[in-house]
Order: sequence, then structure tokens, then C-alpha cells
Amino acid sequence: MGGDFGPHAILPASLFALERHPYLTILLIGEIEQLESLLAARRVTDSVRSRLKILPSGQSVSMDDKPSSAIRHRQDSSMSLAVKAVAENQADACVSAGNTGALMAFGRLVLRMLPGIDRPAIIASVPTLSGHCYMLDLGANVDCSAEHLLQFAIMSSVMVEAVDNNAGPTVGLLNVGEEAIKGNEQVRLANKLLCEQPGLNYIGYVEGNDVFAGKADIVVCDGFVGNVTLKSSEGLARLISNRVRQSFSRTLYRRCLALLARPVLKEMQAQMDPSRLNGATLLGLQGIVMKSHGSADQKCFGYALDRAIAEVLQNVPDKISERLSGYLPSVGD
Amino acid sequence: MGGDFGPHAILPASLFALERHPYLTILLIGEIEQLESLLAARRVTDSVRSRLKILPSGQSVSMDDKPSSAIRHRQDSSMSLAVKAVAENQADACVSAGNTGALMAFGRLVLRMLPGIDRPAIIASVPTLSGHCYMLDLGANVDCSAEHLLQFAIMSSVMVEAVDNNAGPTVGLLNVGEEAIKGNEQVRLANKLLCEQPGLNYIGYVEGNDVFAGKADIVVCDGFVGNVTLKSSEGLARLISNRVRQSFSRTLYRRCLALLARPVLKEMQAQMDPSRLNGATLLGLQGIVMKSHGSADQKCFGYALDRAIAEVLQNVPDKISERLSGYLPSVGD
Repeated sequence: MGGDFGPHAILPASLFALERHPYLTILLIGEIEQLESLLAARRVTDSVRSRLKILPSGQSVSMDDKPSSAIRHRQDSSMSLAVKAVAENQADACVSAGNTGALMAFGRLVLRMLPGIDRPAIIASVPTLSGHCYMLDLGANVDCSAEHLLQFAIMSSVMVEAVDNNAGPTVGLLNVGEEAIKGNEQVRLANKLLCEQPGLNYIGYVEGNDVFAGKADIVVCDGFVGNVTLKSSEGLARLISNRVRQSFSRTLYRRCLALLARPVLKEMQAQMDPSRLNGATLLGLQGIVMKSHGSADQKCFGYALDRAIAEVLQNVPDKISERLSGYLPSVGD
Repeated sequence: MGGDFGPHAILPASLFALERHPYLTILLIGEIEQLESLLAARRVTDSVRSRLKILPSGQSVSMDDKPSSAIRHRQDSSMSLAVKAVAENQADACVSAGNTGALMAFGRLVLRMLPGIDRPAIIASVPTLSGHCYMLDLGANVDCSAEHLLQFAIMSSVMVEAVDNNAGPTVGLLNVGEEAIKGNEQVRLANKLLCEQPGLNYIGYVEGNDVFAGKADIVVCDGFVGNVTLKSSEGLARLISNRVRQSFSRTLYRRCLALLARPVLKEMQAQMDPSRLNGATLLGLQGIVMKSHGSADQKCFGYALDRAIAEVLQNVPDKISERLSGYLPSVGD
């Protein structure tokens, strides 16, 4: 029920995912009448219909609900039931376009953290000159200690290794300069911890411009910096996209050019579309929870579904848990 | 002598600025032989030559010099002498493309802070959907208290009011969400101080995407977040610019289109060029110090010169000082 379009994006995205993945089953949780009526309006094959289950839910979590209030008052929301379905092994992953804070809170409460991990982190991929990299935390934790940044690095290394089949992904720590004296205290301390951590392919500090240059496979930072970086990039992409449209509509000649160049321009706009890499993982939970952008349309929500499927196939939380017992001496104490 | 191109960019930019501004005088400080030989290779009118003075300097500050070491060992560098020229009223402003940390250190040591201001902040303009806005701090202070953020807001309001002739510019505080409960402790406390501060046109929290949307005339944040945001934006602009080139060179048809659309594409590339808004002010000093991007070429360095001239004409430090005595009760105590 979450996001700007709710079932209007999520239902068709689910049907399309079921067509693409013949072994996939989707459990749609939400207002049953709305889901049934949206479904009735669509032509669906028997194979797809047989793998789509609908589960009714109570009042939804709104975008304005505080996480604490969602936990108290929205226990039968679609979001809460979806996370519970993962905890009770009815589902292998939960995908939601709803309130991030509430999703995180339900994740921590219902699924719990992996042993050795204090806090979940939001990780997503961003485009780079050479392909893509991953960045975390994107907003789950506004204040992070050096130890948290270390945990983020370890978890994400395992995840990227599994999902991208990239053995020993490079990890960079986001800072304002490459010199060791720069940066604030947490970052300098985290740098020390990361250098000492065996089994990590840590490459040191990276700066803001290195993120999109693809200098590291994984960029680690606190949730405040990560969130601002991600959102400002979305804003800049929108600005540039807008300027391109203006440039190509200033004169009649240019409008004709724009017509001729339409496929190129569409391709460019698509590449600038930040939703293309939709799907942020709530890393560190004992289960897979995927957050879709709230503004995700059908196509965009589909990307988040695909990411969740990839993590299920790679069994990401189990792999992290396994590696954590080797990495973190305190695990299991 | 600073920046990637040194006098090769700075000398021609200076000559061009002297041509554009008939009342301008420029004091070029650097290696005298290099400057004289570069100058000899150019055709310069008598009017321009009469307003260009050259002052010899000792060994330059390198990009790797630590600020503390620059202050100890580079007292006769071009950077140090340029800042001293402002302190001794030989110049109205100093413009440098050199080491930011060292420039800041010389500024604090030689020019000193404005009364009531604890730390300098780096402020620069960034493009927005509606024109441009200003963002600070862009890297002078990696840790900022709420009081520092308040001082940044006050200083920048006065500066923007003067330079842009914008009475009561809107001020936003950068945060991860618009809800008051979000953000870290300093930001929440700064929000409180900003709300209580008379004479500020404070509009509350803004998010990363609001920066380029132009939601506020001034975006206040700590130097870590500001630096990462600015540099990651430069990285993204470069990425998009690169993708545009690739898109337009994939097939013969597209390469022909690119030829036809050359003026539009050049215009777009220019708009995506982050150097276009070159020139960051070191705000809070008792004098005007302008930092040019290290990678600035001739044209780009010229923008920084123009910004410095605008601040001189508007007498920005004096105006800030004047307003501070009204804003900050502790001033003059």
C-alpha cells in the first residue's frame, strides 16, 4: 500500500515480475477490495494468477507516521504483515515503497538484527563511469560511530560479493580529502579500524567526486552524508534533465533536431533517471527487506522486486551472518 | 602560483579581467621570471599594462602542504603575500587557486576573524532550476556546532543580500528529512537557534534534492556534508556529460546528429560544467579572500575574479560586521 502510487504501481509491477520469473510467487498484502478490483481489470495468465496470493491488511502506515507510532498503532498494516511474513518464513523477502523509518522499525522489531550488528544500514547502487557502485548508509543512521562504519563495510562487502559475483569488492570510506589528517574524528577512527580489518579490500578514503567516478565498489559513510549525497544527486540529475529539455526547445531548428534525436534524448533521460537503480536493501536484518523509492512507478518498482529476488537467490543475510562470525570476534559471545 | 595551471591560467585571466573592468588594478604575486616571460609573449594594451603590477614571491605553497606547515615555512609564498596585501590595504581582495587549507590558515592568521565569528566558512553558488543558490560550509569545518551553523546563516544572509541584491534571502538548514524529529543533534539544535534568530528569513529544513531545486537562496550545512555534496555533484555532472557524449557517438546517424546539434550540445556541456560558477568565498574573515577551483582554466579563473570584484564593490566584510553587531549580542563584549 506504500509509496505515491500504492497498488496502482505495485500490482502491475508484481504481475510483470511473475511473468518474467516463472518460479516466483508473490504475496500481495493490502486492502483486499482495491487489490481485487485492480486485478480484475487486467488480463492475467493462469500461471501468473496461480502464483499471486493476496492477503488483507488493516490501516496502512502513512508517510508521516513516526516509526514509534507505526509500531504501536499499525501492527496489522500491509508493511507490518509483510515483514512478519518474512519472519514466519511465508516469504523470502519483503519489498515496500512505504515509510522508510517505519519499515526499518518493523524490520528491527520483527526480524531482529544479525548477531554482531548494532544497526541496520540502507544500501543502494548508484551509477558510475564504469558501471555502478554501492553506497551505504543512505539514511538509517544520522550519527554513526567508527564501529558502525566498520560493520557497514563488512556487511556490504559480503552482499556485493554475493549479488554482483564480485570477489573482494573494493571499499572506500567517504571523506572530505584523501589525506589522513582530514575528516572528522569518527571517520579517522573508522579508517584505522578498516585498515586493521582482515578480509576487507579497503582502499582508503574516497571523496565526493570519486563516488560517481567508480573509484570504489562500495562507498561507506554515515546516514546523514549518504542521504544528502543521494538526494542531491537526484536533484542535480533532474536539473540537468530539465536544462537539456530547455536547450532543445529554444528555437524551431532545435525543436526539429530534438525530434530527430528523440531516441538518443530518451536514452539520455532514462540514464539520468535516478529511479533506474531503484531498490535499497535494509542491510543487517535477519531477513531480506527491500525499500523501493516512494515515487516508484510500475517499471521502477519492478527493479526493486528484481533486486530482492537476486538477494534471495544469493541468500545474502545467511552469507553475511556466516562471514560475520569470522570477522567480528564478539559474535556469539 | 596555485592551481593546476598556475600563471598559465591566472595571467591571461587577469589580463582579460583588466580589459573588462577599466577601473580594476591587479597585483600578480609569483615567480617574477615566469610571469614576465608569459607577459612578454602577449599583446597587451598600455591601459591594461599600466594597471597590472607584478610582485615577486618565494617558494609556493604546494597542494600537499599541511596548513600548519605552510604557515611556518611559506611566509613569503605568493599565497601568503597575497593575503598580506589585503591586510595591509594594498589590495581589496585576494584570489587564489591554491591549497584551500593553507589559504584558510593564512586568512585566519593574517586577516583575523570578524568579531563574533568563530570560524570561517567556504561559500559558493550552485545552479538551481530557478537560477542559483548559495551553499556553505563547503569544507572549512568538518565538525560544526549549532552556533557555528547559526553564524554561517547570518554571514551568508548579509553576503547574498549584498552581492545578489536580494533583500531577505531565504535560508534552509540541510537535513535528511523535513520532520523536526529527524537529523542529528547539532542540526536539531541549530534549527532551534535559527528559528529564534531575528532578522533571518529562515525557512526550516531542506533536503538534498531541494538544493538544486532552488528551495532556498542559502543552504547551511557543516563542511563535511557540504564538501561531499559539492564534489559528488561535480562527479555526477561529469558522469552525465560523459554519457551524453557516448549516446551521441554510438552510430553514424547519431554522430551526424551530434554535428547538427553541436551548438546545443556545447551549451549543455557548458551548463553541466561545475566550473562555471567558480569562486568560493572564505566568509568570516576581516577581508575578502576568494578561492578558485584548483582545476580552473583561464575562463574559469575569470569567474572567480569577477566574484571578488563584486564583493569588493559591495563591501561585503564591512556589511557583515555591521549586521553582526545587531545580530549577535556577544559581539564587542
